[in-house]
Amino acid sequence: MSESQTDVVTPIPHVSCIGLDADDTLWENERFYMDMEHAFVDLMSGFCPEEDITAHLARTEERNMPLLGYGSKAMTLSMIETATTLCPDLPARAIQTILAIGRQLMESPVQMLPGVTQTVAQLQKKYRIRILTKGDLGEQTRKFILSPLDQSIPYHVLQDKEADTYARFFEREHIDPTHFVMVGNSPRSDILAPLQLGCWAIHIPHTMTWAHEDLPLPPHPRMRRCQTFEDILKFL
Amino acid sequence: MSESQTDVVTPIPHVSCIGLDADDTLWENERFYMDMEHAFVDLMSGFCPEEDITAHLARTEERNMPLLGYGSKAMTLSMIETATTLCPDLPARAIQTILAIGRQLMESPVQMLPGVTQTVAQLQKKYRIRILTKGDLGEQTRKFILSPLDQSIPYHVLQDKEADTYARFFEREHIDPTHFVMVGNSPRSDILAPLQLGCWAIHIPHTMTWAHEDLPLPPHPRMRRCQTFEDILKFL
Repeated sequence: MSESQTDVVTPIPHVSCIGLDADDTLWENERFYMDMEHAFVDLMSGFCPEEDITAHLARTEERNMPLLGYGSKAMTLSMIETATTLCPDLPARAIQTILAIGRQLMESPVQMLPGVTQTVAQLQKKYRIRILTKGDLGEQTRKFILSPLDQSIPYHVLQDKEADTYARFFEREHIDPTHFVMVGNSPRSDILAPLQLGCWAIHIPHTMTWAHEDLPLPPHPRMRRCQTFEDILKFL
Repeated sequence: MSESQTDVVTPIPHVSCIGLDADDTLWENERFYMDMEHAFVDLMSGFCPEEDITAHLARTEERNMPLLGYGSKAMTLSMIETATTLCPDLPARAIQTILAIGRQLMESPVQMLPGVTQTVAQLQKKYRIRILTKGDLGEQTRKFILSPLDQSIPYHVLQDKEADTYARFFEREHIDPTHFVMVGNSPRSDILAPLQLGCWAIHIPHTMTWAHEDLPLPPHPRMRRCQTFEDILKFL
């Protein structure tokens, strides 16, 4: 598909079920990771000012992903690994500060994105809704429980959001992918993987999207783009 | 119910679905946590020989449970917190050793308990089987994938195994608790919580059961006890 084609903007036909990504689609997430990273870089620059701490951390995080997965605990372990590798003389109190930075991330407030709560309530009247997220089960469940969303919405924490994992989910839940729309901010997880399986997808970019998840999104006949969460209604 | 009553030993009537706990019921788990603890105590006794390291670690783990949940990442963070609290002069290389101890736990092999693989295959011919575990989604999924069990068995990682969580699971999965049997080693999570909801339960003690999970089990008309996994067949 060529980049020069323009987006299709017509409504999506025959929708029966809508999947909603959670982090940075329903509520803020990446900004808390950014705050954490700033706090970590601030701390470490006192001990090893000559190092590119952000780059080291990103490499450690990426390397640890197959073993540690996603979430605040994985992130905290990657910060500790980065810190002790970069600075063999690091005092134990600096490690305690890193543990506190990690704890702050785990306890970050649930900040809904604009228009989400009302729009989800409206969607519920007409469609089956599923929240589909990945990452740490406990952390994601905590955010859903603290959110103002109807707690009867089925909430699924997947191990990842690769096409295979979606396929297994659709099979288990008896969902027909061709009548399923995935809504989310992450090109890789929320748009490209579902499109591969014949689903529809609506992309709502977030000002901060994790580099690991960001990929260019050329036009696709089954993809729509929105600027805000409320705007998805015009395609449904 | 008085402790002096003896156990009921008759088969369980009208079973339609069987729930199997995973850690220390299907495969070894606690022994790897014990190995990890020994390695941690060995390491730390070189830095603070006068402290009761095991007791400190257990308290930290228990205190962190509401925030960190269960699993190797939580455990590694609790080890690091314990170590830096007990020993403010701890060198960064000791933290790296703790990270390696944690990584070993995360990568521990999947060792099936005796008779499990054949018995599960037999149960599958007659009953709906569900594996029901709690803890870290990625870690638990990894163990199931590495196990020789039929990968089509639905595998559920719950956030915890309290009665409320079981109740939500039964509702979501359209399972009648009175025709459901839970099989497991943990009195708290696998036996007492399901019994509260009208389920049946079969207890198979493991030589090592985590203190957090261990509670006395007086006889109950809907509970049976076995010495080995194969023995559950006599009640089914």
